[in-house]
Amino acid sequence: MSFDRMIERIAELQNPTVAGLDPKLSYIPEGIRQEAYSRYGRTLEGAAEALLLFNKGLIDALCDIVPAVKPQCAYYEMYGWQGVKALHETIAYAREKGMFVITDGKRNDIGSTMEAYAAAHLGSTGIEGEAVAAFDADALTVNGYLGTDGIQPLMKACAEGDKGIFVLVKTSNPSSGELQNQMLEGGQTVYRKMGQMCEEWGKELPGNYGYSGVGAVVGATYPAELEELRAALPHTFFLVPGFGAQGGAADDVAPGFDKNGLGAIINSSRGIMCAWQKEKCAGSEYAAAARREAERMRGQLMERIGKITL
Amino acid sequence: MSFDRMIERIAELQNPTVAGLDPKLSYIPEGIRQEAYSRYGRTLEGAAEALLLFNKGLIDALCDIVPAVKPQCAYYEMYGWQGVKALHETIAYAREKGMFVITDGKRNDIGSTMEAYAAAHLGSTGIEGEAVAAFDADALTVNGYLGTDGIQPLMKACAEGDKGIFVLVKTSNPSSGELQNQMLEGGQTVYRKMGQMCEEWGKELPGNYGYSGVGAVVGATYPAELEELRAALPHTFFLVPGFGAQGGAADDVAPGFDKNGLGAIINSSRGIMCAWQKEKCAGSEYAAAARREAERMRGQLMERIGKITL
Repeated sequence: MSFDRMIERIAELQNPTVAGLDPKLSYIPEGIRQEAYSRYGRTLEGAAEALLLFNKGLIDALCDIVPAVKPQCAYYEMYGWQGVKALHETIAYAREKGMFVITDGKRNDIGSTMEAYAAAHLGSTGIEGEAVAAFDADALTVNGYLGTDGIQPLMKACAEGDKGIFVLVKTSNPSSGELQNQMLEGGQTVYRKMGQMCEEWGKELPGNYGYSGVGAVVGATYPAELEELRAALPHTFFLVPGFGAQGGAADDVAPGFDKNGLGAIINSSRGIMCAWQKEKCAGSEYAAAARREAERMRGQLMERIGKITL
Repeated sequence: MSFDRMIERIAELQNPTVAGLDPKLSYIPEGIRQEAYSRYGRTLEGAAEALLLFNKGLIDALCDIVPAVKPQCAYYEMYGWQGVKALHETIAYAREKGMFVITDGKRNDIGSTMEAYAAAHLGSTGIEGEAVAAFDADALTVNGYLGTDGIQPLMKACAEGDKGIFVLVKTSNPSSGELQNQMLEGGQTVYRKMGQMCEEWGKELPGNYGYSGVGAVVGATYPAELEELRAALPHTFFLVPGFGAQGGAADDVAPGFDKNGLGAIINSSRGIMCAWQKEKCAGSEYAAAARREAERMRGQLMERIGKITL
């Protein structure tokens, strides 16, 4: 009912990294794409097969050094239901390999509809009395614009299945301040208000390491806000995107951690997935290149954090 | 590049209604469920087939009197990729029958990822130089918490494909005010600020009837806010959920319309889908019951609005 499983794996591997799985075709080596097209043609099926092969190679190369993966729904939906099938298979494969899976869907809706999203991504769906899991990730990112009754159904699924959610608080993109940094009467920003709602919601999902099952998304590109929120939200674990390709560095994300080296998990998507292109190595070595980049990233983060202690 | 096609169909049918397609198994008559299970078993495939059969019957019964349908992604995702395939087929079938399709996904993310969502739901995906449409709806609901660069990629897809988006402004659920009704310094609410952002964004997607391709979601359950926003956002078309099962009535939604009877499209999901259960008629008559309810709803709305004039 919290992020304890994720936190334990972070400590075990001494690595607070999550690898984003946002597999665009242009990131995937030619050999994998051709193999997939030879089976299914240059179709959505073929593209989805390429995504899945690419992801499996990454997961195999990362699963003993990186605690978590974060597939981003958009990059699967753009390949149709066939891509969404590849998302399902990616989630299952990563969990089999012991990775904690955060589905990045930023889902949001009114209560009755959020019950359906909770069933889809974290819980299970009833079919004539039988419970069948649909996507079955360990955690889901969500958008809290609709307030408490859009969050409540997820909390129930988290409590029942030992899972968690990350709520958007301060996002990594350039225009995130347009709404999020607006000042409310009383002198609080919108993002700070959202953060406090996370801290409130989290009371229902307490964990063993001081962090609840309601985390927050806070971008690496805003280190001052990250520091402010770390101090203000002591029970809220942060998912921090924006490292690497979006410009965030180890110094920028350091304020997200507490004195035990906990409190944040840092995402790298393109940095790890596209390491083979940056290194200019052969496409057949993409997984090894991803592992090298993940090791470099762990080195940079751990140099800054020191040791992660439960 | 706007909602002109939708507006023209609303005027043609003299009906500002959108039928929500949120097909839970419990809404679907026994006969349809058994037919689907006989083909695919009591599985996600079987459930997805039941959804699709149910939807096709509704679309056939409604397409000459209701201008639009709004499938809600959550109710398809809960049945796995198999359900998402049924979503794809529902969208295609409804468009074939001349209906305007609003995919209710409330998607949101940073710019580069919103490009993927725009490709998925409104545009097309490139596969080795070929453009392939994935879900190909006419409009998508989105959440604007991330600001302009999370909206821009959608605007591009709308301009290229003559499509539109609806941005969450004031949602219909009980707790929507927790964040949305917070007062900003300067005396403006968060929802009003979001509404103004829609009005700004819409300048890039002007339409022929005074309304842009950037609409707003405003709940029927908050008639005072609906009236305020209609006056404040003269170029923003409203998608109004909350009619019927959520408690909104024709009097509540009336402030959403302009003097020509334009400016809003009113959603009913359970009211129409579950009419056969409310009427206590045979399951085999569910489509006819849905049509009767849609006719009642049109009657209630048009009595209040008068005539819809372009």
